[in-house]
Amino acid sequence: MNHNPAHNLALEEMDKACLLHPATSIADHLANGPRIMAEASGVHVTDTRGNRFLDGAAGLWCVNVGYGRKEIVEAVNAQMSRLPFFHSFTSMSNEPSIRLGDKVLRWAPEGMSKVIFGSGGSDANDTNIKLVWYYNNLRGMPDKKKIISRDRAYHGVTIGAGSLTAMPVYHQKFDLPLPQIRYTRSVDMFRDKPADMSEPDYSKLLAGELEKLILSEGPETVGAFIAEPVMGTGGVLPPPEGYFQEVQAVLDKYDVLMIADEVICGFGRLGARFGSEFYGIRPDIMTMAKGLSSGYLPLSASVINDRIWAVLEETAPQMASFGHGFTYSAHPACAAAALANIEILERENLVGNAAKMGALLKTRLKETIGDSPIVGDIRGEGMMIGLELVKDRETKEAFDLSLKTAGKVQAKGYENLILVRTLPHRDVIAMSPPLSMTEENVEALVAGVKASVDAVADAYKADRLIA
Amino acid sequence: MNHNPAHNLALEEMDKACLLHPATSIADHLANGPRIMAEASGVHVTDTRGNRFLDGAAGLWCVNVGYGRKEIVEAVNAQMSRLPFFHSFTSMSNEPSIRLGDKVLRWAPEGMSKVIFGSGGSDANDTNIKLVWYYNNLRGMPDKKKIISRDRAYHGVTIGAGSLTAMPVYHQKFDLPLPQIRYTRSVDMFRDKPADMSEPDYSKLLAGELEKLILSEGPETVGAFIAEPVMGTGGVLPPPEGYFQEVQAVLDKYDVLMIADEVICGFGRLGARFGSEFYGIRPDIMTMAKGLSSGYLPLSASVINDRIWAVLEETAPQMASFGHGFTYSAHPACAAAALANIEILERENLVGNAAKMGALLKTRLKETIGDSPIVGDIRGEGMMIGLELVKDRETKEAFDLSLKTAGKVQAKGYENLILVRTLPHRDVIAMSPPLSMTEENVEALVAGVKASVDAVADAYKADRLIA
Repeated sequence: MNHNPAHNLALEEMDKACLLHPATSIADHLANGPRIMAEASGVHVTDTRGNRFLDGAAGLWCVNVGYGRKEIVEAVNAQMSRLPFFHSFTSMSNEPSIRLGDKVLRWAPEGMSKVIFGSGGSDANDTNIKLVWYYNNLRGMPDKKKIISRDRAYHGVTIGAGSLTAMPVYHQKFDLPLPQIRYTRSVDMFRDKPADMSEPDYSKLLAGELEKLILSEGPETVGAFIAEPVMGTGGVLPPPEGYFQEVQAVLDKYDVLMIADEVICGFGRLGARFGSEFYGIRPDIMTMAKGLSSGYLPLSASVINDRIWAVLEETAPQMASFGHGFTYSAHPACAAAALANIEILERENLVGNAAKMGALLKTRLKETIGDSPIVGDIRGEGMMIGLELVKDRETKEAFDLSLKTAGKVQAKGYENLILVRTLPHRDVIAMSPPLSMTEENVEALVAGVKASVDAVADAYKADRLIA
Repeated sequence: MNHNPAHNLALEEMDKACLLHPATSIADHLANGPRIMAEASGVHVTDTRGNRFLDGAAGLWCVNVGYGRKEIVEAVNAQMSRLPFFHSFTSMSNEPSIRLGDKVLRWAPEGMSKVIFGSGGSDANDTNIKLVWYYNNLRGMPDKKKIISRDRAYHGVTIGAGSLTAMPVYHQKFDLPLPQIRYTRSVDMFRDKPADMSEPDYSKLLAGELEKLILSEGPETVGAFIAEPVMGTGGVLPPPEGYFQEVQAVLDKYDVLMIADEVICGFGRLGARFGSEFYGIRPDIMTMAKGLSSGYLPLSASVINDRIWAVLEETAPQMASFGHGFTYSAHPACAAAALANIEILERENLVGNAAKMGALLKTRLKETIGDSPIVGDIRGEGMMIGLELVKDRETKEAFDLSLKTAGKVQAKGYENLILVRTLPHRDVIAMSPPLSMTEENVEALVAGVKASVDAVADAYKADRLIA
């Protein structure tokens, strides 16, 4: 790390001259430049100006074991020293990928059968679409190809995955979605569930909407449904009680595959190994990334169950090669990182800690800012918490989005040395800290969030934007 | 590495039980199991049975600097110890990615402006399709969206990139390509160029076919053309003299963007920094992967030129965020690997060595097997050489593909301790060794190829498959 301001200035100018950043306003970036992260340890990240932040977002929902894990760095170093790379085309393989495949299946719910490795959640969901199409072609159902995603979902940004994503900022000017994708009504207990309706009834209502959509499209044209166990970027929205049971009954009725996108929820974030375990989902395909390697190296996995594998295996003698897969599928160094990462999750029982510290985080947030005039809802499971900001707690009236209220809280967070994230489509602050948070870390995050929310609320009061 | 056979057997069974391999016959894999690579050094890779191969394929055309490079391993170790991961959304950045962006632009041809990082060639080409659509939407040409690829091209396997790919094995049962993709006649001086036609005239012919396609589609509907400088997986097919000049004149005439897929050719393989430099291509977008990091860690880049950036910059104030990008875009550890990799390429002048050793490799192959009864053509540039096998050298008659003649040579290669690769659509053996090959390595590879080709030719003679 180099704290010399002149050097930092040069790096910032170099960034603006060279890089196009993801999910960044080009105009803002050219005006304000980057924030350059320099080092990290435990749950803290330090920028080149010397600001040391408590990372309440674990990077992008991904650094599940926290930063500075020597075991992972050493495992990668050992593997790279021995065999930095080899491909897995034409039956080639390597030990860490094989052991990771085995480990992933031991972690996954019963019935999951084979692992296809990739490098990120987007390519894994893109693979999953292709798998649905491939599977239904192989079993002689060439019309059964539509995939139903949900309003406001986020499942990645490739042309395929970005079509499963259902947010204007990821579609506009990119000509997405693909024509095979449909969207059904999403879970939203804060804004969509009628106040006098029970959660089980709301689940029935949503499953009924899904069934109506399948029937109107024609069940013979619908191949799969995809959902995150808790919707992440769409608003940190947990499902109502019984939701996945109702949904799976509908899917079973019409022979529609269930894809569980576990990119965020997987590997302990909800206080269970997977969201599928937490909610009793029986996935046909699982998408894994982020927590699989805690982001230390790029890695993802598409995991298919026995039902899909049986069709692939049965038709294999008539097929040539399986015509899919990446140069970096089953990358040995990335697999070594993931194996070391999962060993940490197991050894330190970080899944259990996520349940405990996540509950504490939610409780303490409710205690400290639950009565803030701009806090409408505090929700989530485990280490995946959302804070919805409102203009009026009674009516749930939202702020004008042009005020960027959540963005203001996030910016105050920088001053208070915490990292939290805003989400694209409404005023929600997302928290997804490392699963290794201690009680002390939780209290520090809560204090930072409270100070940031209070600062915005006070400024809005002064400006008479709220009562 | 563990050479204990019982342990190896267990790993092989575990592989079959857990993994679905890319570009692998499922039936063959279940019957024969994997070949497990255990360690590598220089230009050699050793499997768990103790077989030490000269890697004439550099993994999958990617390990440009060879294996066992301590500088890369140490750079990754240092970066992971300091900051293993941070995202680059919302203007976040990190030093190795900034410095790599600068380095990539210094390597690239004049006029390239901004780098968008990804994790592999597939996601980069998927990004490139989205960039073409985005660019033409921003400049008010919403109909200019078709992308013209070439027959037998390989550009990746995501739904987008896999549509640019034009090989049956990557399309069948996967419902590809997308409706916006077209294919034009490919370069093929061995099988397609009339014997009495000069290379410049053949280039004019192919550019004329491209122009005809653009006109029949309507130029107002054609957004981009994509090509590898030397076509790789499609057959190791260099362009005829003047090809890209003729093609670019057509593209310029109809305002069609040029995408140079440098995934294989880039970072020295042809004996120049990029294929674009080698052939005088003026790309609007470049796809980079493989040699960018020599495969040590997953990394890719989409690089756009001033012309595209000008439109993005001009329209930025009216746009929200740039709604594209990956969690692992600008991954600091992967960027550190790439920086160390490029420093090796520079310090050891591996680009120059590729030119020299590539020329030697082609010459020595011609000298040793140029008159083999089953060798029809030896072609390529730099460290990218193809060997086309034929039944009859005079008529260029091909073998029945079900004989898998190239596959037999590849298998003999294993016995002769060399790795070469077969290509999907005809009997071509591809060689793409590390750029660090010595004369001695070249002689060893040539000897192994000769022994393997001779063994197959002798067997075919004995079976009266050839005269």
